[in-house]
Amino acid sequence: MEPLDPEYDARVRASFAKQQLMATLGVSIAEVAPGRVTLRLPFRADLTQQHGFLHAGAIAALADSACGYAALSLMPRDAAVLSIEFKINMLSPARGAMFVARGEVVRAGRTITVCRADVLASGETAEAGTGAGAATAGTLVATMQATMMAVTGRPLSD
Amino acid sequence: MEPLDPEYDARVRASFAKQQLMATLGVSIAEVAPGRVTLRLPFRADLTQQHGFLHAGAIAALADSACGYAALSLMPRDAAVLSIEFKINMLSPARGAMFVARGEVVRAGRTITVCRADVLASGETAEAGTGAGAATAGTLVATMQATMMAVTGRPLSD
Amino acid sequence: MEPLDPEYDARVRASFAKQQLMATLGVSIAEVAPGRVTLRLPFRADLTQQHGFLHAGAIAALADSACGYAALSLMPRDAAVLSIEFKINMLSPARGAMFVARGEVVRAGRTITVCRADVLASGETAEAGTGAGAATAGTLVATMQATMMAVTGRPLSD
Amino acid sequence: MEPLDPEYDARVRASFAKQQLMATLGVSIAEVAPGRVTLRLPFRADLTQQHGFLHAGAIAALADSACGYAALSLMPRDAAVLSIEFKINMLSPARGAMFVARGEVVRAGRTITVCRADVLASGETAEAGTGAGAATAGTLVATMQATMMAVTGRPLSD
Repeated sequence: MEPLDPEYDARVRASFAKQQLMATLGVSIAEVAPGRVTLRLPFRADLTQQHGFLHAGAIAALADSACGYAALSLMPRDAAVLSIEFKINMLSPARGAMFVARGEVVRAGRTITVCRADVLASGETAEAGTGAGAATAGTLVATMQATMMAVTGRPLSD
Repeated sequence: MEPLDPEYDARVRASFAKQQLMATLGVSIAEVAPGRVTLRLPFRADLTQQHGFLHAGAIAALADSACGYAALSLMPRDAAVLSIEFKINMLSPARGAMFVARGEVVRAGRTITVCRADVLASGETAEAGTGAGAATAGTLVATMQATMMAVTGRPLSD
Repeated sequence: MEPLDPEYDARVRASFAKQQLMATLGVSIAEVAPGRVTLRLPFRADLTQQHGFLHAGAIAALADSACGYAALSLMPRDAAVLSIEFKINMLSPARGAMFVARGEVVRAGRTITVCRADVLASGETAEAGTGAGAATAGTLVATMQATMMAVTGRPLSD
Repeated sequence: MEPLDPEYDARVRASFAKQQLMATLGVSIAEVAPGRVTLRLPFRADLTQQHGFLHAGAIAALADSACGYAALSLMPRDAAVLSIEFKINMLSPARGAMFVARGEVVRAGRTITVCRADVLASGETAEAGTGAGAATAGTLVATMQATMMAVTGRPLSD
């Protein structure tokens, strides 16, 4: 896919750096390409649900940002990106040491961009005494389908 | 709705207390009733996205837990609840001082329970220098439709 | 909710009349109000799935049109409505003699309108020899959450 | 993917033949493989929405059946498949002469199977005087993410 803005990489990274939730959860950028952004999140016990697995909300945050930045990478320089909606299926218990979300654009439109993200887990959960265990390398734990919107030249309120 | 387990309230609160992500984000329980659970999350700057609003992932985590516990409140004593999937629409910029998610059961089945959650914002964002501002009382910022599953007597892996 | 176009009723009915699929399935309008449209579909054996219940696709078509026209009823006169996406949960087997979808606007924005539709079944399925049976009056068989877009002054291709 | 039932192909085709809606819409099977089912639907004017494109409900019916049968192809011999829920994004106006839905299993579990379907359009719409036109070969018009459930040894009502 062809980026409209040659400086898409710097623009995505600058916006990501402003998402304070990403720092709070410990998410970092693994890759930025036109129409594709990969983020990673190391397991932390303070992000879990009641069975010791990563909480679906943490996985959704990871996948939503991966989708949003995949969309932004193809938008014009003056556009901001908003999540209109997303849907996520949890496919396996989210255990493992590292979680990676690969967001990619399915279709980029002038206003609406539709994205998909797969979340994979790998490695062994370091926490003892939880219900969590080892993930085989690259276990698919969730998949998201998301709708993003480009907003230009007006307040971010519609 | 009639709870199958008269001690549903204690069971929901005990499970919620084990969701470490809830403590990390600052979420607390406002109400537990049969088929309805309300959670609240005070605004914090470290949970925001790039425009200074609450990140969609934080809102999704809030709404997912509200839906999951609404479902659990109607399940038998020995059941655990898993999020199969959810879909959330972001309706307005998530600004405000307090966010409340009201999760409720739409239909409770033997295996599958379908829930809905509305997320409302109220109060004025305390952060200066952000894109965030005041929410009128009870602004609807997001709505979720979620599918939960009751798991009994087997490992939590399907 | 306040309609922007006082002739919203005639506009909705004129557009509905052009949806040839509605006639093919046997769907008719039960009610048009600002931000709310109710459609009905009598059971027909040629709309069923493999167990003799109404096919999820027929129910989705019914609910999608109810949502789309609920959205259109609040749009300006020169706007067309497009379905960006929808998500539907099937809650009970779709048996019964009559299916009613109540679509309503959850939030109307300048570009994006989010809607919800409940589909209720009533009456007894007239078909013998199928897996279908009687629905108690007003059984909730499905619920949809949908995202609609207003398109004005440009081709319908984005 | 390995089918549990070596006669999956005959079982899928026999069930599909009972879905009367498929015959009513004109849908036929293009391919059955373990975990993957492709269906096709030729354009018909009586399946359109108000702008002359194929109605989103017809596309949803096509994609839902493709997902359901992809799931069924991997289920044991005595299982029935039910659609729990699906979400579909409409990506481009649904114009063209032929619509093909490729359903495939993303993850098959004991109870829950998650599927995806892409719907592609090709050829030129034969209808004159509509808003419809030519689709370039293999235009992606919609994508679905769906949750299916295996039901065995009990009535189809939960």
